[in-house]
Amino acid sequence: MFSLFRRRRDRPAVPRLHSRGEAPGNVSRVDVVELTPGLVEYLGQAAYVQLSLFETLSEAVLGAPSTADKESVGQVAALAMAKHHGLVEEIRRRGDDPAAVMEPHARRLDAYRRITAGADWHETVLTAYLTAGLLDDFFRRLSAGLPGDYAARVRAVLSTPDGHELLVAELREAVDSDPRLASRLAMWGRRLVGDTLLVARGALVFERGPQGEQRIEPVFSELIAAHTRRMDGLGLTA
Amino acid sequence: MFSLFRRRRDRPAVPRLHSRGEAPGNVSRVDVVELTPGLVEYLGQAAYVQLSLFETLSEAVLGAPSTADKESVGQVAALAMAKHHGLVEEIRRRGDDPAAVMEPHARRLDAYRRITAGADWHETVLTAYLTAGLLDDFFRRLSAGLPGDYAARVRAVLSTPDGHELLVAELREAVDSDPRLASRLAMWGRRLVGDTLLVARGALVFERGPQGEQRIEPVFSELIAAHTRRMDGLGLTA
Repeated sequence: MFSLFRRRRDRPAVPRLHSRGEAPGNVSRVDVVELTPGLVEYLGQAAYVQLSLFETLSEAVLGAPSTADKESVGQVAALAMAKHHGLVEEIRRRGDDPAAVMEPHARRLDAYRRITAGADWHETVLTAYLTAGLLDDFFRRLSAGLPGDYAARVRAVLSTPDGHELLVAELREAVDSDPRLASRLAMWGRRLVGDTLLVARGALVFERGPQGEQRIEPVFSELIAAHTRRMDGLGLTA
Repeated sequence: MFSLFRRRRDRPAVPRLHSRGEAPGNVSRVDVVELTPGLVEYLGQAAYVQLSLFETLSEAVLGAPSTADKESVGQVAALAMAKHHGLVEEIRRRGDDPAAVMEPHARRLDAYRRITAGADWHETVLTAYLTAGLLDDFFRRLSAGLPGDYAARVRAVLSTPDGHELLVAELREAVDSDPRLASRLAMWGRRLVGDTLLVARGALVFERGPQGEQRIEPVFSELIAAHTRRMDGLGLTA
């Protein structure tokens, strides 16, 4: 399924992972700014990503094993929807139709959501936590390159509470009590990162070719490092 | 499937519908107050009802035919979750665990959600609109019987925006453009009311027997009248 994305590209799309010991160099604001797409492109993708996260979390609410889990994941879903709504407001501020602005990204992001849906409840919750973590982080960094006041406002929207501590609590409990599930979730977490980085990559503006790859590599190294820290925080080997 | 509920009761549970021309008498505040269950019972049910509505709306988001529909129904889902969250805060205010307080009602309300899920997207959206309309109305009325400040605070939570105008817009468009769908939705709307009134009935405190039935009848007449107005508003015959 991974090849679903790769096939459309002329080269392997996932950037190399730095060796674990190496501290990722800080990507300067200027570097990211140059990679930020136009405002409409950005808002359409960022808004649809939050809507997709809401959908993944909704699946987790619908499949929750207990009332407490349902309640907990439901809160996180509402927070993703709040971010989506904040981004939709920014689209409206421009006088654009939110659905029309999101539409060009729907098919690609729906496919992404399907392949990262997870085979059971814990996988779905892990998907929500890891992909929201990576993509929120990514779009927050990228927002620095947006024009005028949009940079600050979009950053504010993407910095509102995400409730991820509730997902971590769910996952830690499962990981700590069931070693077999833990090992399956570790595999699933490693599997998710490639597809998620492709979504991020698809949002960047850069020249194809070795020079372009070199420019985006530091951004990806930081995203992967943060992903690894999230996996570590769950007690899973990245 | 209707019998799933009915079987557990010793008499037909749906109150008689007044003839259409007859204006339903206004139920005084005192009448409703006497039917209101204890605070914990009330909050557990009302909170779980909102969580169930959120789930029904989530199903509609996941099955939405277009990005615009997804966006629109997603907003309504978030508003149901906000009501749920407000009620959960009231449970927490008492020092109770929300999941534990909702748990006794989960099985019955999950069964209700399953039988009212709808066979396609429009039926699901109609379910969300009509059942939220009826149950929000019902729990809002009943809140007058809650002790102390709870009455006002719960009423405020249940009076926050519900976004139902977005659902009406979706449904009107479908009803106006497709007469066969309209007639199917009219049937579905009539079918929903019985199951939904059973949920309401399950929340009321009253003596079983002819006298009890007489006491709850006016409440139900008003709920049914409001339901009929919602159906009319969609261009559907109730």
